[in-house]
Amino acid sequence: MSVAQAIEALRRELGAENVITGPEDLLCYSFDATPDLPEGKPDVVVTPENTGQVVKVVKIARQYGLPVYPRGSGTNLSGGTVPIKGGIVLTTVKMNRIIEVDPSNLTATVQPGVIIQDLNDAVAPYGLIYPPDPGTVATATMGGSVAECSGGLRGLKYGVTRHYVMGVEVVLADGEVVRYGGKTVKNVTGYDMVRLFVGSEGTLGIITEIIVRLIPAPEARESILAGFGSLADAGNAVVGIIEKKVIPATMEIMDRVTVETVENFAHVGLPTDVAAVLLIEVDGIPEVVKSEAAIVREIIAKNNGWVKTAASEAERDGLWAARRAALPALARRKPTTILEDATVPRSKITEMLLAVEEIGKRHNLIIGTFGHAGDGNLHPTILADGRNAEEMERVRAAVDEIFRAALSLGGTLTGEHGIGMAKMRFLPWEMGDAGVKVLRRIKQALDPDNLLNPGKMVECAKGE
Amino acid sequence: MSVAQAIEALRRELGAENVITGPEDLLCYSFDATPDLPEGKPDVVVTPENTGQVVKVVKIARQYGLPVYPRGSGTNLSGGTVPIKGGIVLTTVKMNRIIEVDPSNLTATVQPGVIIQDLNDAVAPYGLIYPPDPGTVATATMGGSVAECSGGLRGLKYGVTRHYVMGVEVVLADGEVVRYGGKTVKNVTGYDMVRLFVGSEGTLGIITEIIVRLIPAPEARESILAGFGSLADAGNAVVGIIEKKVIPATMEIMDRVTVETVENFAHVGLPTDVAAVLLIEVDGIPEVVKSEAAIVREIIAKNNGWVKTAASEAERDGLWAARRAALPALARRKPTTILEDATVPRSKITEMLLAVEEIGKRHNLIIGTFGHAGDGNLHPTILADGRNAEEMERVRAAVDEIFRAALSLGGTLTGEHGIGMAKMRFLPWEMGDAGVKVLRRIKQALDPDNLLNPGKMVECAKGE
Repeated sequence: MSVAQAIEALRRELGAENVITGPEDLLCYSFDATPDLPEGKPDVVVTPENTGQVVKVVKIARQYGLPVYPRGSGTNLSGGTVPIKGGIVLTTVKMNRIIEVDPSNLTATVQPGVIIQDLNDAVAPYGLIYPPDPGTVATATMGGSVAECSGGLRGLKYGVTRHYVMGVEVVLADGEVVRYGGKTVKNVTGYDMVRLFVGSEGTLGIITEIIVRLIPAPEARESILAGFGSLADAGNAVVGIIEKKVIPATMEIMDRVTVETVENFAHVGLPTDVAAVLLIEVDGIPEVVKSEAAIVREIIAKNNGWVKTAASEAERDGLWAARRAALPALARRKPTTILEDATVPRSKITEMLLAVEEIGKRHNLIIGTFGHAGDGNLHPTILADGRNAEEMERVRAAVDEIFRAALSLGGTLTGEHGIGMAKMRFLPWEMGDAGVKVLRRIKQALDPDNLLNPGKMVECAKGE
Repeated sequence: MSVAQAIEALRRELGAENVITGPEDLLCYSFDATPDLPEGKPDVVVTPENTGQVVKVVKIARQYGLPVYPRGSGTNLSGGTVPIKGGIVLTTVKMNRIIEVDPSNLTATVQPGVIIQDLNDAVAPYGLIYPPDPGTVATATMGGSVAECSGGLRGLKYGVTRHYVMGVEVVLADGEVVRYGGKTVKNVTGYDMVRLFVGSEGTLGIITEIIVRLIPAPEARESILAGFGSLADAGNAVVGIIEKKVIPATMEIMDRVTVETVENFAHVGLPTDVAAVLLIEVDGIPEVVKSEAAIVREIIAKNNGWVKTAASEAERDGLWAARRAALPALARRKPTTILEDATVPRSKITEMLLAVEEIGKRHNLIIGTFGHAGDGNLHPTILADGRNAEEMERVRAAVDEIFRAALSLGGTLTGEHGIGMAKMRFLPWEMGDAGVKVLRRIKQALDPDNLLNPGKMVECAKGE
């Protein structure tokens, strides 16, 4: 049975318009946003239009023994969507319908190809928001962000994707369609299958419909920029604010390297004579915003920081655009950008910031660190040149040490980017061999032939 | 190999003081709080003092082929802790240490035997709370409530247990000890094993340590009692409040049967000439409380309700004591109390209330309905006499119909009590045979010999 026959079957079942085989087109699906990883060219890309067509793809894949890689917009940062073993890339772009917004139940039901921002635009007229807010909110799909359990800027106060997914429809590896969860706030029927599929990186099933929880949009907000002369002062301010029982919607950090780079790139008036800035937003009803902002300013002052409050919405938007420019700005400085997301308990953020700085110095690397300080979720970003083999060796050694540091501080390998291919080999460092074995058993229980996104998260030989 | 030898091995490894075999003592572990279910006498009850002893129990159980039933305080309402196939009941009562309260990270680390209220008492001096709030908060253990994913009165605003568990240590069926999650707000390392163990009802592993998230205690609160002349008015008020973007901390309902029974029992001054009352509490900073309470009163009036606001803390406490007395008060009226927790999307609450009323009338049964109206999580409570076989037949028929009604309204079999033994046969109604098959595969992947709490949630023949 040949790949050509499989493609023929796909054309027959999905229509030629949903089957892509042009060599240049296939190339576009051979990588995602992750650097320094092997690529893999798919044999074919399919764009199913509904759940029934997804079932057909899975059945054809089984018949011809071809792997299936579910894919949204490919903004993945751990190599999760790379078709490393050839086969079929299944992109959800054509399943992009917002099926329902239900303001009585504070829910929305979407197909996986819906862009996160489009969902937010659709619920805004109801005074509602969908809080998960990854940096790629304007391009990433709901399906991809659910499969990766995206985090983002508002995790501290509002939680991450797993806190908002209430129900899923999934096509399993055997082609069966299952639905778990629904629109009820409470549901303990069976194991928590909804959360098992959230963050499963396309390895357990293909998510074809998603019910999410929405929340009322905050009435007011205030953005505060704070500058610090030392990393430690910035880290201590983060801890101090939480200890005062103030939970800002976002509490972002950018270190000197990042601030300088962003300012050179975007010219938004960031101070460049600082060791770090914090960008903090509190939200809620106006009275809450006022009292919390006052406490934030007090703690910043106590930790030797200076404060600037956004005087207008335009100024606020400028500050946040600057923060969102951190990664693209850093990426312009050198050809290869290695973005990590090792994450520590909030109280350890100062230690982690200093550890990353020390690791960068010791390996003679430029590391810009920014990220979600309130979550202890830092993005140390190593700027390098993939063509320089010696430098890339130092990069890899530094990445290893960053993970070691995070784990030794009680942290985790990945706060929001996932394991994918990039972090598979580190898994036992965090959960031990016994812990990884359980993951592998779950993968084998749901996908015994290793058909779905093989080579990601846990390695499973066929029939192992 | 005999049970006597297994008991001997347990005595040797755990000490005689942790091995209970007296027939009267064993009897106490043959049932839980669930009525109308088969009982099962254990061969032995063990009270391990630490994780190492739990491992020993699991290994001895494997060696002698005896099932192990993890158990907290036995407040379970779906038969989840009944040792239906004999063997070893493992109670966590002696593992009741609060290991750490960490105000910087807003976490607490506890052993499974800690009583939920004791955790709340321990974190109160830090101005923190652990929000999950089942009715049995003063007796239920953390381990039991995590294994069942308890909900309770504050689910609407604050979520349920799965939203607060950040990390677990678990003894697996093969005796391996694994740890997943930790103190980081964000963690996407591997599948969401933390959430898989939350709500797994002791069937996948024995939870021996739990890290939970805490939140700042609200500064102020206001309790409002509302009476309605019809069930529909009460249900519509619930939906109306949420549509106004007010999310109360709790929004409880009691129907006429429940209100009359509670008032006769507790004499707290509840009105008895109503079709239903709502008991609503809003909380937050004082300004929020004031503005949200005003909206709540407005919506109640619009739905033909009258309002009484608790004028003092004592009056407030009286109202909530009345609500918490609903189940014990109902339970006094007849010998057998069948408490269900079929749950519907919030917008369907009026339809569900009316459906339950109609089902009760048709089967000539007394049903008192109370519960967490804001969550769509109702507790229709059937008052019957287990010795009356004919009546119990009608009870079972009514329960079936209540589940059918909930599912047809887009709801779920169980909002917070779990599947256990009581609802196993209904599982396919909600998730289909394909959905149940996945649960069974997960059980078999983690516990291939069906050693842990067998006969609960999904039936798995040994070696199936």
